[in-house]
Amino acid sequence: MQPPGRPVIALDAMGGDRAPQEIVAGALRAVDELDVDILLVGSPEAIDPLVPPGARGIEVLPTSEVIAMHDEPAAAVRSKRDSSIVRCAEAVRDGRASAMVGAGNTGATMAAALLRFGRVRGVARPAIAVPIPIPGANRRQLLVDAGATVDPEPAWLVQWALLAREYARFRLGVEDPSIGLLSNGEEAGKGDALRKEAFALLSEIKGFVGNVEGGDLARPSADVILTDGFTGNVALKTIEGAMLALAGLVFSVLDEPEWGEMGPRLKVRMLEAAADLLPDNTGGALLLGVKGICIISHGSSSAAAIVNAVRVARDCVEAGIVERLTASVAESGMRDAG
Amino acid sequence: MQPPGRPVIALDAMGGDRAPQEIVAGALRAVDELDVDILLVGSPEAIDPLVPPGARGIEVLPTSEVIAMHDEPAAAVRSKRDSSIVRCAEAVRDGRASAMVGAGNTGATMAAALLRFGRVRGVARPAIAVPIPIPGANRRQLLVDAGATVDPEPAWLVQWALLAREYARFRLGVEDPSIGLLSNGEEAGKGDALRKEAFALLSEIKGFVGNVEGGDLARPSADVILTDGFTGNVALKTIEGAMLALAGLVFSVLDEPEWGEMGPRLKVRMLEAAADLLPDNTGGALLLGVKGICIISHGSSSAAAIVNAVRVARDCVEAGIVERLTASVAESGMRDAG
Repeated sequence: MQPPGRPVIALDAMGGDRAPQEIVAGALRAVDELDVDILLVGSPEAIDPLVPPGARGIEVLPTSEVIAMHDEPAAAVRSKRDSSIVRCAEAVRDGRASAMVGAGNTGATMAAALLRFGRVRGVARPAIAVPIPIPGANRRQLLVDAGATVDPEPAWLVQWALLAREYARFRLGVEDPSIGLLSNGEEAGKGDALRKEAFALLSEIKGFVGNVEGGDLARPSADVILTDGFTGNVALKTIEGAMLALAGLVFSVLDEPEWGEMGPRLKVRMLEAAADLLPDNTGGALLLGVKGICIISHGSSSAAAIVNAVRVARDCVEAGIVERLTASVAESGMRDAG
Repeated sequence: MQPPGRPVIALDAMGGDRAPQEIVAGALRAVDELDVDILLVGSPEAIDPLVPPGARGIEVLPTSEVIAMHDEPAAAVRSKRDSSIVRCAEAVRDGRASAMVGAGNTGATMAAALLRFGRVRGVARPAIAVPIPIPGANRRQLLVDAGATVDPEPAWLVQWALLAREYARFRLGVEDPSIGLLSNGEEAGKGDALRKEAFALLSEIKGFVGNVEGGDLARPSADVILTDGFTGNVALKTIEGAMLALAGLVFSVLDEPEWGEMGPRLKVRMLEAAADLLPDNTGGALLLGVKGICIISHGSSSAAAIVNAVRVARDCVEAGIVERLTASVAESGMRDAG
């Protein structure tokens, strides 16, 4: 490790569809570009050949096990104690690193963080906060929960609202973030049983603006869009899938010979205009509600995506985000959700 | 009414953001183009000035009340007995029309159909079947339930699967339709409590292919994508919103002066390539599980959208769809769901 005082980020070198190559490449770039040190956690046989001799700012924490994408998360975290993602979480817990980043099995990454960090007092279950970019609007909105906790109780959404509002202040740079509840209609009476109960509880929370709809995810609506982890996962993947499908149609038109050399030029320009929407650039998602910083990057993370996720991790460390989130729940007078 | 034997479609002239003008214009076009008669239901003061004297194939059923978009659906259907949408449903119930089409308050349209038609034996609650176009694939998939019933029991999804599979045979022209359960992961164990229970029950149903994800809605995956009405509404509006947002970005690039006259030409070509995706062309949604044909058109329906919805209604009449759907549930041996 080099200059003391640089934050150390633990990175799961074995996690993600393009591990370890892209993860290690991302680590090397992050050390250069971001003023951080990286603790690469994983199999030395996989990692070492990818790290140039004498590389500064990189240390390897050797582990012998890997949790695969199809492993059942909680069981795998319990049984594979020497897996890279579990050791990442322990490195943060033990103070050897200030934050962890993982692009592997999302459930296992969450479970490792939850089990090794523990929960923030007053928070029953964690939630994932994913920034959703708005096409052409130079603005993002946080979708919470994007997949951590299915079947939440209504009160848990209130806890997430407090956490997400504080996180939005930092991540979106908005002083007084608004909070919308994702529902099947804007009117106050809309929703299933969970939404109706949550709506009543959320009405007591500062910044709550009522229901928003699916169509509000990709257009400016509320800084925080609250939902359960099941709906959030479906909505997030639906946005990505819908945009990908339409982008394919647009590109297939631009491939038509009629447009000549204008076709390829327009493709480049379209990609540039849509840069915020590309997975490489959307940055990592923070796991809200655990006593440590865990950044989840998408499964197909490239080196560029890893650099962005490490940047989010570093910024969270420097902002003291766990302390801020903990205080936001404590100040609300929430009782420990036990 | 003209030549006997032409099916009569009851049309809510007062329903939709662009009623009555676009609805009546759609009725006039439908009579010309589709070999149907239209029973225009609503206020004569609103309708009559829009119908040319001596127009053939159009009859007006005068009503004195209107259910507005913000009215609470079930209460409005109960209290406004002379509303256009209630009278539409009664016209079908009483045999004066063979099907109804409404573009107004969706909840009220469903409630009117449910209360006046009654449920198909063996079906506990209705579900909306919306065809989702796949960009560039010349294929559609049915999203069921797109918003009729929130908080369903797991067994209701099995009833919807039977109905939707039969409807997909007719509407998609697929002989052996596949059925996917919308979940937060492809693996069998994924999902919230509802999905886990439904998955086990659906495994007994012919055509069931397991879980699909949000990203599978806009790409070829399963002919029928099953979900609860809450998630279905959110997913449907999320697709529309995401595509609209990306389309806006694409068009803003094409507006840049750099592309000269190619910009406007490409816009026209893009709209042509995306014609299947435009609301005017997606046709109406059938309410599955009621003893009559109720087609729901979107709230911003233009005359073209109304023509398409009436075409779907006519095709459903000619196919004897209610009898087919009723038989599909009866043959499954489902007990009456009460």
